[in-house]
Amino acid sequence: MDKLFQPSSVAVVGASRNPSKIGFSILKNIIDSGYSGNLYPVNPNAEEILGLKAYPSLKSIPGDVDTAVIVVPSKYVLDVAREAGEKGVKYLVVITAGFKEVGGEGIKREKELLRVVREYDMNMVGPNCLGVIDTHTPINMTFAQRMARKGHIAFISQSGALVTAVLDWAAQAKIGFSKIVSIGNKADLTELDFIEYFTRDPDTNAVLLYVESIDNGVEFVERASKVTKKKPVIILKGGVTEAGAKAAVSHTGALAGRVAAYEAGFRKAGVIMASSLSELFDYAVALASQPPPRRNGIAVLSNAGGLCILTADILVKKGLSLATFRSDTIEKLKKILPPTAAIYNPVDVVGDSDAVRYLNTLETLLSDDSVDAVLTLLAPTALIDPLDISKGIVELKKKYPNKAILAGFVGGPSYYDAVEYLMDNKIPFYNMPARLATAVLGLVMYKEYLDRPRYKYVSVEDVDRERVKQIINIVRKEGRTVLLESEAKSIAAAYGIPVPKFYLAKSPIDAISAAEYIGYPVVMKIVSPDILHKTDVGGIKAGISSSEEVEDAYEEIIMNVTKYVPRAKIYGILVEKMADKGVETIVGVTKDLQFGHLIMFGSGGIYTELFKDVAFSLIPMAREEVQDLMGRTKIFNILRGYRGMPVSDIKRLEDILLRINQLIIDFPEIVELDINPLRVYEAGRGAIALDIKMVLSKEV
Amino acid sequence: MDKLFQPSSVAVVGASRNPSKIGFSILKNIIDSGYSGNLYPVNPNAEEILGLKAYPSLKSIPGDVDTAVIVVPSKYVLDVAREAGEKGVKYLVVITAGFKEVGGEGIKREKELLRVVREYDMNMVGPNCLGVIDTHTPINMTFAQRMARKGHIAFISQSGALVTAVLDWAAQAKIGFSKIVSIGNKADLTELDFIEYFTRDPDTNAVLLYVESIDNGVEFVERASKVTKKKPVIILKGGVTEAGAKAAVSHTGALAGRVAAYEAGFRKAGVIMASSLSELFDYAVALASQPPPRRNGIAVLSNAGGLCILTADILVKKGLSLATFRSDTIEKLKKILPPTAAIYNPVDVVGDSDAVRYLNTLETLLSDDSVDAVLTLLAPTALIDPLDISKGIVELKKKYPNKAILAGFVGGPSYYDAVEYLMDNKIPFYNMPARLATAVLGLVMYKEYLDRPRYKYVSVEDVDRERVKQIINIVRKEGRTVLLESEAKSIAAAYGIPVPKFYLAKSPIDAISAAEYIGYPVVMKIVSPDILHKTDVGGIKAGISSSEEVEDAYEEIIMNVTKYVPRAKIYGILVEKMADKGVETIVGVTKDLQFGHLIMFGSGGIYTELFKDVAFSLIPMAREEVQDLMGRTKIFNILRGYRGMPVSDIKRLEDILLRINQLIIDFPEIVELDINPLRVYEAGRGAIALDIKMVLSKEV
Repeated sequence: MDKLFQPSSVAVVGASRNPSKIGFSILKNIIDSGYSGNLYPVNPNAEEILGLKAYPSLKSIPGDVDTAVIVVPSKYVLDVAREAGEKGVKYLVVITAGFKEVGGEGIKREKELLRVVREYDMNMVGPNCLGVIDTHTPINMTFAQRMARKGHIAFISQSGALVTAVLDWAAQAKIGFSKIVSIGNKADLTELDFIEYFTRDPDTNAVLLYVESIDNGVEFVERASKVTKKKPVIILKGGVTEAGAKAAVSHTGALAGRVAAYEAGFRKAGVIMASSLSELFDYAVALASQPPPRRNGIAVLSNAGGLCILTADILVKKGLSLATFRSDTIEKLKKILPPTAAIYNPVDVVGDSDAVRYLNTLETLLSDDSVDAVLTLLAPTALIDPLDISKGIVELKKKYPNKAILAGFVGGPSYYDAVEYLMDNKIPFYNMPARLATAVLGLVMYKEYLDRPRYKYVSVEDVDRERVKQIINIVRKEGRTVLLESEAKSIAAAYGIPVPKFYLAKSPIDAISAAEYIGYPVVMKIVSPDILHKTDVGGIKAGISSSEEVEDAYEEIIMNVTKYVPRAKIYGILVEKMADKGVETIVGVTKDLQFGHLIMFGSGGIYTELFKDVAFSLIPMAREEVQDLMGRTKIFNILRGYRGMPVSDIKRLEDILLRINQLIIDFPEIVELDINPLRVYEAGRGAIALDIKMVLSKEV
Repeated sequence: MDKLFQPSSVAVVGASRNPSKIGFSILKNIIDSGYSGNLYPVNPNAEEILGLKAYPSLKSIPGDVDTAVIVVPSKYVLDVAREAGEKGVKYLVVITAGFKEVGGEGIKREKELLRVVREYDMNMVGPNCLGVIDTHTPINMTFAQRMARKGHIAFISQSGALVTAVLDWAAQAKIGFSKIVSIGNKADLTELDFIEYFTRDPDTNAVLLYVESIDNGVEFVERASKVTKKKPVIILKGGVTEAGAKAAVSHTGALAGRVAAYEAGFRKAGVIMASSLSELFDYAVALASQPPPRRNGIAVLSNAGGLCILTADILVKKGLSLATFRSDTIEKLKKILPPTAAIYNPVDVVGDSDAVRYLNTLETLLSDDSVDAVLTLLAPTALIDPLDISKGIVELKKKYPNKAILAGFVGGPSYYDAVEYLMDNKIPFYNMPARLATAVLGLVMYKEYLDRPRYKYVSVEDVDRERVKQIINIVRKEGRTVLLESEAKSIAAAYGIPVPKFYLAKSPIDAISAAEYIGYPVVMKIVSPDILHKTDVGGIKAGISSSEEVEDAYEEIIMNVTKYVPRAKIYGILVEKMADKGVETIVGVTKDLQFGHLIMFGSGGIYTELFKDVAFSLIPMAREEVQDLMGRTKIFNILRGYRGMPVSDIKRLEDILLRINQLIIDFPEIVELDINPLRVYEAGRGAIALDIKMVLSKEV
C-alpha cells in the first residue's frame, strides 16, 4: 500500500473553492501537511483552487495519479471510479457517504462501486470515511480539522468522527501517529489489510483499531494471528453490550456479533482488547515505545507516599505484583536515601527529594535484575524541576534500553514541558496512577503473549467417523435437526467421549432386561423428537433399583408424557446406568455468524449461570488452548484439588474437550452441542457426559 | 472553624526571607491569595519580610491572632504552641514534620504537643501537613506552588503531596475548590471534624477525602452518617491491597485496617467510595453541581455514532440503563432529525449537525419526564463551535434546573474555551466516555442513598441472656477463650438460633441413649478444648443409624483422637441429629480494630472461597441492613428461588442474622463467630446452624 500512504501524485476529485466544503478542507489539509508530491484538484468549474491548477476531470491530468480522493456527491462516485480505473489510478479514497450505511439503494450503489474497483484492479478506502493520514510522508488526505503529530502508532478506525476526536485529544496528550486510516464502510480494504500492512511498516510500533463489527471473524483470526507477534495490535470493540450494539447497528448498518465470540477471536489472534478509548491509548503509548516486562518485575518510584500507595493498590488489583529487590539494591538504597524514605518496593524518596536523589534511585532500580520496568511517579514540589527529571529519565533509558520506564507525573500545568519532552523522546507519560497501571498491564499481557509458544494442532484419530455420518444421515432423512438423546450419546461414544451405558427400550420388558444387563441403579428418560425439556413433562425417573421399579417407571413416564404432550412421537425410553457423584462441569458449543464454532467450558449445575464461571474459545483448539480454556475458570481450582479436595481427572477432561473439538471440526454441521453435566471424577477415574443435546444446521 | 478558614488575623511563625524556605512560601502564598485580614510574620532575626513588619515572637504581636501557622523546626514547636496558647490563638496549623510519622521521640513529641493544644483550649491542624486553603475568604496557608481555583468542592487529604498533585491537575481540568485541608498526622482535628464542618459550609457542595487510615471507625460511622445526606461525601482510601497497605504503613505510620471493614463502614456511613484519584474527582465534579438521577433515567446525545456506542457500552457495564423515551419525544425527534440519525436512546444527531440541531435535540430530551440526566457527547467537527454548544447547555440547564447535564466532549485543544465556560457555569466536563459514565454512576449511587429511609434499630428481646452469661463464665473460669462446640451451640440456642438436637455424651452407653432419644441418623463429634479441627484427627463420624454403629463410632473417635492428640483433654462426644440437605450458607463475625464487629454472609461450603461470594456489614444492623447484606450475595438468587428452584426460608434467615446481631451487641466479648454451614431450607421449613465456632476476647 505504499502508493496509498506515500503516493507520488494525488488527485482530489470534487476539490472546491468554497471553504465550507469538504472538498476544500481535504485539498487544504494535503497542502498544509507539507505533501511534496504532485497534487491535482479536479473540478470542472474551476481554473485554480488554493493556488493549484484545477483539472476538469481525472483524464485531463497530464501525469500518472497514484491515489484519487473522491468527494463528489454519491450519484457521481461510480463514474469517477470508472474514470479513475481508465486513468490507471491505484487507490481510491472515497470520502462520500450515502452507500451501505443508508440501506436500500445505497447497498446496491456500494456493490456497483466495488465491482468497478475490482474490474480495474484498484483498491479502495471507504466509502463513507474521513480519509487517510501518513505523518512520515507527510500527507493528510482527510477533512479533519487537525493533522496528527508524527509518531509510531498506527490507528485504524471504523468511525470517522472518532478519528477527529482522537486527533484532538492526542494533540493535548502529545501522542504521535505514524498512519491513520478511517475505513468507513470498508467495502474493499478492511481492517485486516491495514493490520497486515502496518505490522510490516518500519514507522509503526503499535497498531490500534476501533471496530464495531468484523465481517469474517474466521479470516480475521487466521490472518491477524500471523502478525500480532511482530507488532502489538490493540483493539477497542464498540457495541459490546446490548445497548451499545443497538447503537452500532443504527450507526453503520453492521451487525455487531456476540461479545464472547469476539473476545475468543481476539484472544486466539493475539490481539489485546481495550475496554475504553483511554485504555486503548494508554496501552498504545506504552506498547509503541517500551519493552514488555514480566508480571512480577515492576518497581514503583515516587517522591510522594500517597502516589506510592495508590499505584501499588491499583497494580495489585490488576493482578500485577511488585518486584522483590536484590539485597544489594536494598543496601544501595539505604545509602542514598534518608531514613524516612521507603526503600522496599514501592520506593518513596520523600517530598524533600531533589532531582539528583530521585534519578540516583531510579538508576539503582534499573540496574536490578529483578526489575523489568520502573514507574516513575512525581508530585510537584519546589525542589524538583519536572523537566530535569524528564531529561534524566531519557538519559537513563538510553543506558538501560531493555528496561521499560513509564512516567506518571500527577498534575497538570507543571508538567507541560515535561510531557512534550518525554513523549518526543519515547517515554510514555500518564497523569494518573490508574492510567499508568493500565499501561503496564498492557505491556505485561503482550509479554506473556510473546512468550507463548505457537500452538500445534494435532487431530484425534481414534474416532469412528463413519458411525457419526450414519447417525447424521438418519436424522437428516427424518427431516430433523434436533438429535435424540440416544443419537447424541451414540455420536459422543463414537468419538471416545464417555457416556453412561444406555439402551433404548421399546417396552417395559425390554427396559427390564436392559436394566438387568446394565446393572442397577438406573435412570430412565423419554426419547421423543417432540420433547426437548424432559423434566418439565415428567419424562425422567432416577434412582431405579429393581425390575418392579423399572416397570412402574416405564408406565409412569409414558403416562406423564401422553398427558402433557399428547401428540408426541415416542421412540422409546432410554435406560441408563446412574452415575456416581463428581465435580459438575458444563461444555457447550455454538456457532457464531462471524467467528464460527465457539466452545464454552465451566462450572455446571446451577452455578453456571449464577456465578457465570465459564470461559470461551474458538474451535479448532490446540491442546494448549484447551488447557488455557480450563484454566480460565474458577471450577478449575476445584478440579486441581482445592483445599485438600481430591485432584480430578484433568487429563481425561482435556482429552474429552479435544475430542469434542475434533467432532466439530469433522462435522461442522453440528451447530449446537450441550453437555450438562460433564461429571468429572478423581484422577484416573475419568469423567462422564450425563446429558447431551445436539442440533444440526438446517439442511443445506 | 470559621476562625480557621476565615481568620481576622494570621501569624506565620517561622516566616523566612529565604525564598527556598517553606516559611517564605507560606507567607508569600497568603499574600498572593489576596488575604485581606491582618498578617504577621514571626521571626526574631528579621525586621521585615515580603514588605510586612516582622515580629520576634507571637507575644509581641499587638493585636489578636486567630490562627498561627507554625513552620519552625520540630524542637521549637512545643514552645511556640505554648506561647500561642498564652496569646489566645484559636487555631494552630502545624506544618512542621518530625512527629508521630518518624516514630520514637516523634510520637512523644506529638503527645506533648497535643497536651498543650488541649490545655489552652486551642485546635490544631497537623502536624506534618501542607496547610489549609479557603478560596472564598480567600486565603492560602500552604506551601503549595499553586492556589486552588474558586469552586464548591472541599478536599480533605491525609497526604500533603497528593494535595500539590491534585492542585496542579485541577488547574488543568478547571476544577474549583471551596476549601482544602491537609490533615497530616491529624493529632487533634481529624477528617471527621472537617467532614462535619464542610457539610454545613454554604460554599461547599461536595466533600472529598483521601485517607490512608481511620483511627476510630466506630466514631467515624456514627458521626459521618449524620451528615452524608446533607452533602455527598466521597472517599478514596489508600492502602486497600497488601502492597498498598505496606506502603501506607511506612508512609504515615498509620495502621491501614482491613478493606472489608472500611468498605462496610463507609457503606453504613453513606460515604461514596472511589477506587482511584480520577474517579474521586469525576464523582466530585458531578456531585457538586448536578441533581442525582434515577438509575434508568439517563439519555445519551452525540454528534458521533462511535461515541454513542462507547458510552452506551460503558453505562450498561456499570449497571446503569438508558431511559426509554416517551412516544411524543420520539415523534419530536423524528421531526427535527434527519433520517440517518438515531432517535432512540442513545441519540445520534450525526456528523453534519450544527449547534441548533444539537441543542434542539438536547431540549427535547430534557423535556421528557423519563429522562433525569442527559450526557452530551461531542466530537469536533467544522460545523459545530463547542463554545456555542456550551452556552446552549448552560442556558438549557437554567431552564431545566432539576435535570442533570454532563458534558463529554472528546478531544483536547478544540475545547479549551468550552471546558472553562462549562466548569465556571457548573456543568461538569469530561473528555472521555468512561469518565462520564463514572460520574453518572456516582450521581445515581448518591440518589439511591438519599432515597434510602433512615434505618430503625430494633432489639430482639426473646433471648436468654442469663444462660449465655453462665456459659461464658464457665469458659472464663477455665481460662479458655475458644468455646467448645456444645457451649457455642447452647449459646446459639439461647438466642433462638436453631441448632440440631444434641447431647454431650460421656460414655458409649450415654451416647446410645442420646442417639435413641434424638432419633437416627446422627452425627458424632469429639468435644475437646485442645482440638479445633475435628476432621483432621478423625474426630467426626456422620450417618450413624443404629446403636451398634454408635458404640463403634464412639470407640473409633476416642482411638483416633488419642492417637493424633495424645494429651488432648476430652470432654466427651457430641451426639447430634443429622440434618437434611438445604442451601449452604456461611455466617461469620470478626472484630476489626477500627470498626468493631463485622459480620459476613454468603455462599457456604467450598464456594465461599472459590467464588468469594460473601458480603460484609458492620454490627449493629437494622433489619434493612440485614436484607441489604443478603441481597449483595449471589447465593441470594438461589435463596429467592432461582430458575424454578424452591424459594428458601429467607424470613427465618433474616431473623437468624438479626439474632446473631443481637448476641454480639449483648456480648461484645465474642470476637469471632463462625457458622458454617448455616443450612437454609424451603420457605416455612427454617434453617439450621450445623457447625459453630466461637472465640472470646482475651480476658480483661
